[in-house]
Amino acid sequence: MVEHGGLDIMCLKNKYCHSSSSSSSSEEKKQQEEEEERKTRTSSSSSGTRLDYPRKSSEVLSGQYGTNVLLVGAALLLAVAHRGPAVAEEHLLAFTTGLMALQLLWMAWYIWIRDRRGDLRTERDAHATTCWIRGGLTLLALLSLIMDAFRIGHYVGFNSCVSPVLGVYPVVHATHTMAQVHFLWFHIKDVIKNFETFERFGVIHAVFTNLLLWCNGVMSEAEHFLNNHKRRLYALGYGNLTIVHSEPHCNCTTSACSMFSNSLYYLYPFNIEYHIFVSAVLYVMWKNIGRVMDLSSNRKRSATKTRGLILGPILGLVALASTIGVLVVYVIHVEESLQTRQSAISMFYCYGIIMLVFMCSAGAAGLPHLPGRPHADGHLREPLDTELLFGSSVGSWLMSWCSVVAVLGSTSSPPYRWTNFIYSLFTILEKCIQNLFIIESLHRRRDDGEDPDSPAAPEIFSVTSSLAPPYNGILNRAYETPERDCVTMDNEQAESGRAYRSPRKPSKVPLTEGNNLVDPLITKTQVLKNIAIFLLMCNISLWILLAFGCRPQYDNGLEQEAFGFSIWTTVLNFAIPMNLFYRMHSVASLFEVFRRA
Amino acid sequence: MVEHGGLDIMCLKNKYCHSSSSSSSSEEKKQQEEEEERKTRTSSSSSGTRLDYPRKSSEVLSGQYGTNVLLVGAALLLAVAHRGPAVAEEHLLAFTTGLMALQLLWMAWYIWIRDRRGDLRTERDAHATTCWIRGGLTLLALLSLIMDAFRIGHYVGFNSCVSPVLGVYPVVHATHTMAQVHFLWFHIKDVIKNFETFERFGVIHAVFTNLLLWCNGVMSEAEHFLNNHKRRLYALGYGNLTIVHSEPHCNCTTSACSMFSNSLYYLYPFNIEYHIFVSAVLYVMWKNIGRVMDLSSNRKRSATKTRGLILGPILGLVALASTIGVLVVYVIHVEESLQTRQSAISMFYCYGIIMLVFMCSAGAAGLPHLPGRPHADGHLREPLDTELLFGSSVGSWLMSWCSVVAVLGSTSSPPYRWTNFIYSLFTILEKCIQNLFIIESLHRRRDDGEDPDSPAAPEIFSVTSSLAPPYNGILNRAYETPERDCVTMDNEQAESGRAYRSPRKPSKVPLTEGNNLVDPLITKTQVLKNIAIFLLMCNISLWILLAFGCRPQYDNGLEQEAFGFSIWTTVLNFAIPMNLFYRMHSVASLFEVFRRA
Repeated sequence: MVEHGGLDIMCLKNKYCHSSSSSSSSEEKKQQEEEEERKTRTSSSSSGTRLDYPRKSSEVLSGQYGTNVLLVGAALLLAVAHRGPAVAEEHLLAFTTGLMALQLLWMAWYIWIRDRRGDLRTERDAHATTCWIRGGLTLLALLSLIMDAFRIGHYVGFNSCVSPVLGVYPVVHATHTMAQVHFLWFHIKDVIKNFETFERFGVIHAVFTNLLLWCNGVMSEAEHFLNNHKRRLYALGYGNLTIVHSEPHCNCTTSACSMFSNSLYYLYPFNIEYHIFVSAVLYVMWKNIGRVMDLSSNRKRSATKTRGLILGPILGLVALASTIGVLVVYVIHVEESLQTRQSAISMFYCYGIIMLVFMCSAGAAGLPHLPGRPHADGHLREPLDTELLFGSSVGSWLMSWCSVVAVLGSTSSPPYRWTNFIYSLFTILEKCIQNLFIIESLHRRRDDGEDPDSPAAPEIFSVTSSLAPPYNGILNRAYETPERDCVTMDNEQAESGRAYRSPRKPSKVPLTEGNNLVDPLITKTQVLKNIAIFLLMCNISLWILLAFGCRPQYDNGLEQEAFGFSIWTTVLNFAIPMNLFYRMHSVASLFEVFRRA
Repeated sequence: MVEHGGLDIMCLKNKYCHSSSSSSSSEEKKQQEEEEERKTRTSSSSSGTRLDYPRKSSEVLSGQYGTNVLLVGAALLLAVAHRGPAVAEEHLLAFTTGLMALQLLWMAWYIWIRDRRGDLRTERDAHATTCWIRGGLTLLALLSLIMDAFRIGHYVGFNSCVSPVLGVYPVVHATHTMAQVHFLWFHIKDVIKNFETFERFGVIHAVFTNLLLWCNGVMSEAEHFLNNHKRRLYALGYGNLTIVHSEPHCNCTTSACSMFSNSLYYLYPFNIEYHIFVSAVLYVMWKNIGRVMDLSSNRKRSATKTRGLILGPILGLVALASTIGVLVVYVIHVEESLQTRQSAISMFYCYGIIMLVFMCSAGAAGLPHLPGRPHADGHLREPLDTELLFGSSVGSWLMSWCSVVAVLGSTSSPPYRWTNFIYSLFTILEKCIQNLFIIESLHRRRDDGEDPDSPAAPEIFSVTSSLAPPYNGILNRAYETPERDCVTMDNEQAESGRAYRSPRKPSKVPLTEGNNLVDPLITKTQVLKNIAIFLLMCNISLWILLAFGCRPQYDNGLEQEAFGFSIWTTVLNFAIPMNLFYRMHSVASLFEVFRRA
């Protein structure tokens, strides 16, 4: 398929070539098969005008299918959370196991078909993921596998009195994880062109299966944290909370059961991040189905320059180290008497304020150093990234505003009342500045004389940024049947009215600024790189704090007083997973800012 | 500005005109002022490359400002819902009153500035709203005014013991409503080109103020409904629920207080729809800021043909009439003994199944009658509409899946158990089919030989469909400074790489199908129109049922058993407002389908 795509772009440029594309592949048999399929496709879309029909419909239908799969899972989750007689955890696990098995079947089918047809003909989207992302995901998958091993161990210990689903689930999950990592390494960049409708359902099924596993992880984690919190409150004398025990009703036959169940909770955060990131990557693959690749941009970029990188990494490491210190002190002290507890919370807020002030200043200092030119395709590159950043900020903003309202309306006055207030305001401000910094950075490019349209376009790191809207829409439609004469294409081009041009048309215009400004630009770039790396490490720090149980929002009592236990835990259960995703996504986006600067 | 825009498009077509655009306006003084401002703008964006900087930043910043305003309100709402000592309803009302006053100031400033500069120079987006929408909004606004009058009457009766904020709020709200309706009629189509950054904040403030008022309405309505529901449960003997009374602690000094507070709740649904629709319309205005209009499409379409419209409207009227019957019977019977209550619920489900079967069949029957050609700019027209339809379906789908889970897991077996199950499945299916029908309809156009690029392009009804992404992005950037020589523009055009062309380039290619197919097409059109009008009236029916208290999800008890009271009411409080919005938005979209067919 690669050759056809390339030829097509040439076609479009010359506008009057009638070639019907001689494939350079040598395997005659496969070629014949392919042509037969093509004929079938062409005859079903006889006049060439109905081409868009199955695409749009299958997009809508598969989207609805995926959403409904997730919602069935969500309904089961809610029923399990109630712990009523109707639905038990086994039902939920059986449902997710079924979904994972279905995804495994689809992946096996996909790989088998790819192998049968020969891998050479599959187009690839070089921007879909990078080895950084895949490496990171593999690491997270390894930790998920350890978690599965612990779950199996736990099941073996209690196998006499628990449902066999609890044993099947981790086995299927482990198989699913390994198969999915294999898929991520070898097939995630594929641009699917055959059996599009079927594959669309397969990919969206994978996306929503991972999202459901994410929801499941988030709920288990939240429940565990809530139980811990109630236990703490109980120890402090608030005796009217019921702690839900999910332990089985028989004795463990091995000696390691409690070790298994306690260790599980340290691995949850990684499992959660793994699933949400895989679903984002698979979503990009879904969007890529049937897309026509811009082949000239499928090049790698040279290694990232690291000259002048001193202050950012050093400050970042300081932040990271102090974070780990604060985490340890907090987790130990918050379990103790009321006074050490209060001092631990105060310490956290003071530390948080210092951190956020530095982050705000870094972001604000970075803004004037951004390059002035908007990216030629800046509008196209970052819409989904922007939406994800924005959307995931909402949870944290809501939490902070609730804290502000609680502090202002509070009748009690613990020592951390006003530090909490200042901390919340800075959290809001920091996200505003950081969002602006990231969006503006991704939106512009350097004035260093590098031709934006040259083949050495920077490789894009972000999981989502390879989605340029015109590719999904109008371009796709025009490129769809590689053999059509360019006259037909020209018709369609005229019809579609306004919106496309041959991709990567070389720039004929000399840049008005550039080259003569090299020295100040290098300084600017260095400043930007330092700031990006500092913010990146700060975001990792804040992710660590939140993921490993440093959540003063549960412990300080102010918000609970203003909103009541149930409303406030609902807000936290909604906001904390979003905040965790925000921090991780910021890390990915800031790494892209760093590479592009 | 109209003249400059027009000249600019010519410029772009000819590519080498150096004219600096002679305005045809006669008022010399205003022209001078304008030119001075233009000079200031040009000098601040000296090289022409920094133009995008303030636009993108102000978009991001104003978006973040608006979101945070809403979230402060949401935090206050949550605190009020808890009824703790910290925050009382007065605080929330004072906050919203402040926001409304701010919006009033902005609107006054906006109108004053427009009047001072002369209205002639404001570009308008003919697609932004139609008189149908504005008429409908005016009607809803009138009902909101009656609601304000009732609120004032209620305050007068209790003025000795309630906070004066309860009196100030309806007065400000009434003023706000009247001013906003004036704004909707005379300024909503404006495409803002001056003080863009400031106006962006003003418009987004208006959007989120209306959204907050919507949230407030939804919460009051949900609380009222929940109290009614608890009262009913109490009457049936479930005595352990506390009913929260929000009545003041003194006697009413007039005789009409109870009439006022009882009538209020019949007006809530209209007030809620008013605010959500106004915010959607204002959001389109926000997106239009700084956009360059395609002047050739600013024409009106001839009147909609209504020939052959018989079956659809008749069946629709039957549906509407039976709905009102069912509503009345349900609302009366559900208050009575357990048995009449159960029969009322059974009746509702049977009626609902019949209705949904008809709607599913109509939607499915309509799909093959859709025209085969995708709209030339179909991809650009409906993205936001699609997202809104999809997003608002989620609430209803979640609710239905919860019902399915509850029925399957239930231990009790009321007579309506399996009708509830079938009803829920049909609700899901109906939304899937209807979404596909609407999206596909908006996505394609007739093959009746009408040139899609002719000036008589159909007027767009939907509140959101005038947002074509390329206009927001790349085109804007190029058109921004009307006097720049076209050589500079040409540079930018080459720079921006791929994505624009002169808008509405006339099609040179004769359509391959058309004219000879007129007769079957008329039949197809008639079938489509009948189906659209039938679905439209069914959606109105379902909106009426839901808005006026026919909510068996509260009354049937099955879901409450499976999910518990608090989880289930949370799900309903989330899902029902979304479902209401879905029905209203479907009505608007189906009306567009009807007009376009």
